[in-house]
Formats: sequence, C-alpha cells, structure tokens
Amino acid sequence: MILVVNDDGVDAQGIRALASVAQEFGRVIMVAPGGGRSGMSHAITFANPLRLRRIHHSPDFEIYKTNGTPADSVKLAVRHLLKGQPIDLLVSGINHGANTSASVIYSGTVAGAVEGCLSGIPSIAFSMVNHDKNCDFESAKEVARQMIAAVLEKGLPPRVCLNVNIPNVLTAEIKGYKITRQANNHWSEIIEMRSDTANIPYFWMGGNMQDVDKGRDTDHWAVSHNYVSIHPIDTDWTSKSMMKELKKWKLKF
Amino acid sequence: MILVVNDDGVDAQGIRALASVAQEFGRVIMVAPGGGRSGMSHAITFANPLRLRRIHHSPDFEIYKTNGTPADSVKLAVRHLLKGQPIDLLVSGINHGANTSASVIYSGTVAGAVEGCLSGIPSIAFSMVNHDKNCDFESAKEVARQMIAAVLEKGLPPRVCLNVNIPNVLTAEIKGYKITRQANNHWSEIIEMRSDTANIPYFWMGGNMQDVDKGRDTDHWAVSHNYVSIHPIDTDWTSKSMMKELKKWKLKF
Repeated sequence: MILVVNDDGVDAQGIRALASVAQEFGRVIMVAPGGGRSGMSHAITFANPLRLRRIHHSPDFEIYKTNGTPADSVKLAVRHLLKGQPIDLLVSGINHGANTSASVIYSGTVAGAVEGCLSGIPSIAFSMVNHDKNCDFESAKEVARQMIAAVLEKGLPPRVCLNVNIPNVLTAEIKGYKITRQANNHWSEIIEMRSDTANIPYFWMGGNMQDVDKGRDTDHWAVSHNYVSIHPIDTDWTSKSMMKELKKWKLKF
Repeated sequence: MILVVNDDGVDAQGIRALASVAQEFGRVIMVAPGGGRSGMSHAITFANPLRLRRIHHSPDFEIYKTNGTPADSVKLAVRHLLKGQPIDLLVSGINHGANTSASVIYSGTVAGAVEGCLSGIPSIAFSMVNHDKNCDFESAKEVARQMIAAVLEKGLPPRVCLNVNIPNVLTAEIKGYKITRQANNHWSEIIEMRSDTANIPYFWMGGNMQDVDKGRDTDHWAVSHNYVSIHPIDTDWTSKSMMKELKKWKLKF
C-alpha cells in the first residue's frame, strides 16, 4: 500500500504522474487537498471541520480529496481511511517548483513527507524545478521510480525522510544523484502595498530567493547543475552543537 | 528594537505578558494575528492579500494586527514596517500550551521564531504548559526576562533559534533550566466522524501525545519535572548521519 499526497491539489499533473509511478509498485491511495495549498508548511486543522470525499475508485487505486492541508490529508488517510492497515510508503508531490534551501520549511509537499515520517511511514517528497502546470514529468517519473524502489528495498531510519528535487531538464540530460544538505539561502520578500476600492491598504507578498550559499554540496547547487538532489531531513530539529554551547552559558533560575 | 509575535492572536494574555517584559529592554513592536492561529506551523500567505492595522501606539510600544499567520506577521514587520531598521531580538509567545516533542513542528509560535532566525534576527519562542487563557504568567515572565537578557548579551549563531517551554508551576517551584533535545513523542490523532444537518460526514481532529521517549534529556521530560526546557532549533533540517548512509546506497541514474 502506497499513500500519495501533495500540496498542489488533487488535480495537479504532478500528483497524477507520481501516482502512476506508485501504481507500478502496488495498491495506491491518493489523499490530497481539493486545491492548491502551496506555502502551507505543516499547518493542521483542528479548530474547523475537515471534509473527505472519494472521487475515484478501482481495485488498486483510490482518490480522495480533502478541504485540509497536506498534513491533514496524511492524518485523514493514516488515522481514518487506512486506520490500522500497514502503509509501505508515502510519496508527496511531484511538486510544481523547487523545494530547496529555506523553501523546505515553507513547503506543504515536504510537510506531507514529514507527517508520514512522524507516523512511522518511510516517506519521500518529490519536487520538479518547473512551475509550468503542464510541464514534462518524464524525468521526474523516472527519478520517482528509482527512489521508490530503493526506499522500499532499504527502508529509512526513524525520524528521517527524503526531500528529492529534480532539475528542469530532459531525462537524458540528468547528470545523476547528489546527496545534499539544505542550502543556507533565504527568501528576500517584497511586500507590495496596494489599495482596495475603499482605499484601504492591502499587501501582496512576493520575493526572490537569495543565492548566498556558494557550497557545492547543497540541494540548490545540485538542481542548478542538472543533478537530482536527495536531501535527507531529520524531523528532530535539535541543534546538538548549540546544546553544548548553551551548557556553557550557565543559566541559573 | 524588539519584535514580538505569537500564534494565539494579538489579544492573548501570553503576548501581552511577553511584550511587558520586552519593554523593560527597549522599544517594542508587536505584530500578531488578529485571532488564534494555533497549528499553523510555518504557513505563509502569498495567494491572498494580507492586511495590517495599527491598534495601539505610544513612543516605545506599537501594536499591529494582521489577518495572516505568525510567519506572515514576521515578514510584514521585517520587510515592510521595519524595513531596513535593525531588530535586536524577536520573541514569540508566550504560547498557551506546551510546544515540545512533535508539537514543535506544528507550532505557529515556534515558526515565528524560526522565521525571525531565517531573517537573521536572534529569536526565542516561549510556551507555557497551561491552556487556561487567564493563567498566571509570572513564572513565564521571569524566564522571559532572564532569557532575553542572556540572548541580548551572548547572541545566537546563524540558523539557530531557541524554543523555551515553561512548566505549569509557581515561580518558586521552578527547579532551574535544562538544555534539551526534542523528544521523539508524536501525536496519536483521533478523527471523529460526525454528520452535518444534510447528513454529509465531516471530521474533527483531536488526539493525544504519545509519551514513548523515556529519555531524561528531552524537552518533554524537563517541563514534566518542573524544569524550564531550552531546546535549540537548527533551521537546517539536514540529517548528516543519513547523508553518510545515502552515499552507501550508490544510486545511479
């Protein structure tokens, strides 16, 4: 049983491409938001009702859409639809757009995989460095095929999931895999102030990624140089080095 | 200049308590959601307009409320209200309820501090292990006072922020500080299915934290034993050990 989720919504080409690859490995349940939930990070819904509706079913493939976030979708699948059933793998994506550098933190696609990991399921997030909703997913599908096979064979340790980014090139142009760290690049937001028809200001957020981390071992470097980035995420965010440093502060209450 | 944010909303007692302590150290700008945004994690808003309204101002203290998330509030402050001005510190909270174990990942309060950290500001999240909206914040205020003084003096390294949890006891009963790691406890959700008046099912999410990590070095252990937990968070989520392991997989595209 493979659970498929995303943050671009149930109708996105990326999740359909990913589900088609997952089906090569077994039974697939897709549970995904009804529409786009980009930038939702790991938000969950407990102060409003959730909805869940099956929109397709055949013996080996079911699709459900939710009004929730990617993390909600995983919870609805694991704790309700598939309650008590073993889930071999969770795959999230294929996201339309890169999830590298600080975008890892904002991404609903990555959060889907992190949520799977918190539930004890080997989990992989996939993102394609292309925002065109009709982009060619052939190279991403081949990457997903290889990564799914590898993780089903080898498993993943507790508290760790994988964040895979695929460069925007043809399959033949992919140079290979790079095991990467999360680049220390961050967004520089531009907050545009506009006025509504009542002349009350409102704000649109936009921005650009600041490419300041020049390391050649990063997720951003890899996809910028036609490599597939495999970035292992630890869901324990503890900074071990800062634990040591803080002990030297000798704080006394 | 100290920036104050939270996820319980601008009217919560916790943020007012935190702002009163921050004012002891200098000029304070509070930018916070208009209402509760618990469980919003690091969600950001770029597909809808943001609103921002000043609701209080005196020479050394201003309050703004937003329709956005905690992370949005930080971005509106840093990139619009205080654009180009140095910000000495960001404090987030005081959250009503613990942010330990997996709750660190779901928390909007923690995300506020992570967002400050991504913007290069020394940042601290504070949470009180008490959900009563009128709870006594005296012990938490004293912790905030000491932690703000320490971080203003010593600073924090890049990519690291602090997640501080205060136990639900009187000031005199606090045993001291513990430098902690994030406990490997996770939520076990209960998805309750109900029916609306049209007989269409909807779902409420609830759940309980599963206290499976028995380590005595965790955030959860500390607050359960009347210690203040100081959990340093790394905004680089890379699992270094898994990077080594993945290299042994010898993946070939």
